[in-house]
Amino acid sequence: MQIYADNAATTRMSRTAIDAMIPYMEENYGNPSSLYTIGQRAKEALEQARADVAAVINADPREILFTSGGSEADNQALITAATLGKKQGKTHIISTAFEHHAILHTLEKLEKEGFDVTLLPVHENGIVDVQELEAALREDTCLVTIMTANNEIGTIQPIREIGAVCRAHGVLFHTDAVQAVGHLPIDVKADNIDMLSASAHKFHGPKGVGFLYARKGIRLTNLIEGGAQERGKRAGTENVPGIMAMAAALKEAAANMEKNAAHLTALRDRLIAGLSDIPHSALNGDAQRRLPGNVNFCFEGIEGESLLLLLDDKGISASSGSACTSGSLDPSHVLLAIGRVHDVAHGSLRLSLGEDATEEEVDYMIRSVGEVVGYLRSFSPVWRDLVAGKTPFIL
Amino acid sequence: MQIYADNAATTRMSRTAIDAMIPYMEENYGNPSSLYTIGQRAKEALEQARADVAAVINADPREILFTSGGSEADNQALITAATLGKKQGKTHIISTAFEHHAILHTLEKLEKEGFDVTLLPVHENGIVDVQELEAALREDTCLVTIMTANNEIGTIQPIREIGAVCRAHGVLFHTDAVQAVGHLPIDVKADNIDMLSASAHKFHGPKGVGFLYARKGIRLTNLIEGGAQERGKRAGTENVPGIMAMAAALKEAAANMEKNAAHLTALRDRLIAGLSDIPHSALNGDAQRRLPGNVNFCFEGIEGESLLLLLDDKGISASSGSACTSGSLDPSHVLLAIGRVHDVAHGSLRLSLGEDATEEEVDYMIRSVGEVVGYLRSFSPVWRDLVAGKTPFIL
Repeated sequence: MQIYADNAATTRMSRTAIDAMIPYMEENYGNPSSLYTIGQRAKEALEQARADVAAVINADPREILFTSGGSEADNQALITAATLGKKQGKTHIISTAFEHHAILHTLEKLEKEGFDVTLLPVHENGIVDVQELEAALREDTCLVTIMTANNEIGTIQPIREIGAVCRAHGVLFHTDAVQAVGHLPIDVKADNIDMLSASAHKFHGPKGVGFLYARKGIRLTNLIEGGAQERGKRAGTENVPGIMAMAAALKEAAANMEKNAAHLTALRDRLIAGLSDIPHSALNGDAQRRLPGNVNFCFEGIEGESLLLLLDDKGISASSGSACTSGSLDPSHVLLAIGRVHDVAHGSLRLSLGEDATEEEVDYMIRSVGEVVGYLRSFSPVWRDLVAGKTPFIL
Repeated sequence: MQIYADNAATTRMSRTAIDAMIPYMEENYGNPSSLYTIGQRAKEALEQARADVAAVINADPREILFTSGGSEADNQALITAATLGKKQGKTHIISTAFEHHAILHTLEKLEKEGFDVTLLPVHENGIVDVQELEAALREDTCLVTIMTANNEIGTIQPIREIGAVCRAHGVLFHTDAVQAVGHLPIDVKADNIDMLSASAHKFHGPKGVGFLYARKGIRLTNLIEGGAQERGKRAGTENVPGIMAMAAALKEAAANMEKNAAHLTALRDRLIAGLSDIPHSALNGDAQRRLPGNVNFCFEGIEGESLLLLLDDKGISASSGSACTSGSLDPSHVLLAIGRVHDVAHGSLRLSLGEDATEEEVDYMIRSVGEVVGYLRSFSPVWRDLVAGKTPFIL
């Protein structure tokens, strides 16, 4: 059995998305900035795509800026807020300890430039406390940036409440919604979101394309200078095929969102129940307030990397931590943020289900993970010490 | 007859490139940062693409950084040189007056940060004088950035000589080679190039992908912070399908470079000869030291925009100035830089031929441009005054 269970890392492009892309590579390949027919046809398509993307999050088309992906959108949103803040003498930013590195590393850069960053705790359940956010706001706070759903443990933040608090205090609110767009309903107006980042390849669109929503009136700072594309705010010939594919994928995801969420939630809960039967295991993050397809566990006494390799042998593609940080030997900053100790965080597994997942696959994953965890523990010195009572069990 | 003669703006993706792309959208869609099989397969492909791209310009694979396009590469190269320069107290940059806006606008940003920018003249022939470059070098020069071939008039700069001068003076040399890569032979080692920007969609690869070559030892400054992709120098999930397509397109372009150049040069010269017969017309830029497929003319007494629209009616896709600046009413900064006066610069036409162009098409373009120019002049008040001797002819 071959099961791709790493949809939080990236997704397979849908047929709809591929079919939307091809015509703009072979036929309507014109540069949208050109006056002639095939250029104008590309331009019209681009603007239709912008309208389609905007509609899904209840934005206006002019509020959508196409980027090369979620990381670029995150960077531009933060640099924009920092630039606007600096002009007003406001140099305090609030975020959380378990944001994506596209946020955290940009915040570190801003700290070097004199910004003061408060990272809110996310507690054991992986959810920000809105009262703690409100208490952290200062006179000089220029930005609150909190992700909609976490990329590792899938926990969903109270975005609407956060947006309301920020709006009431006149502070810009950005959300990295890379894991959420196409999977959860988002209404930037009702949610009081000022800026939002998204990435196409997380919802069956292509890699290398994403978008930044920025509420009308927010003057964006360029990350990439050059031509006058994207109303002068993002230079470079527009990736028309990629944008067309993103819009098609997003429309498809939005149309099937409820159905997909119901299907995935049932499978997720079945998978969580099954994996919970493995001794000394624990789900990471809130059991209910999480993305429909996200399951993330820690298993005591094993190494996540070995687990992944053996699962791969069984045909299961999964991850430990986020794809962006693999290769690193450090334990996940997300798991540390929800209070997992170093050793336990190392033995983590993320299974992120795709919409075509089945009960049969879930049951196969439960069996396989159980077998592999048992096997790894059979020769783990850490596990031996735990069983012998030399070190205490944590989970 | 339908003729796409705007290959300097963008090109049609080749079948080879599309075929190289599709498998990474549907089958090997894994995230290259993942440990499991389909992730590793994507990773291996990515590294093969890096080696293929590097080979074409005689670089080492580790010197290739994949970006979202030429503009991003240009921005990152300049920001990198500026960062390195500042550390050494060197804040002088030399460039030319007719660079792409991705360079010029980034230089303007750097000027606001205290950098001093010298823009070299490019003379009537559109070519930098190496002695003038050498004379402009200062003790505090940290960067020379000069494009390999101009995007509007196609003139080719003496890159090897420029590289030698820069190396002799210990100054970093970056070249925006967006118009040249895949069309002209480039050898970064022999040419003493420290950094080079390229864009896939200019050589029949996809839009939204490009690369930055940076010589070993140059510590790049990130434009996009986040995950550890691209050795920590460019965050964001790698656009594997786009990169595979770019590598395939570049290999194909390199393999056919001589043949294509001979074919295009012959057609270009035929087109130049034909258009030169139109009264009061003039070729822009050196007649020989220009890209094989580039033809750029000024026609006195007409508006470029009307010319393009009427040519479009005749099935010819062409441009006036660069695609990146269309929509602007200002005359091309490139044409002004080679000394064309405002009125003449407005009546410009760029025809950039594709490799599949034919003599028949060239002859059709010569006839069509002649007809359209004649027609536009027939009701042009500017032309009437010229003919009546009220204003003097310039061309």
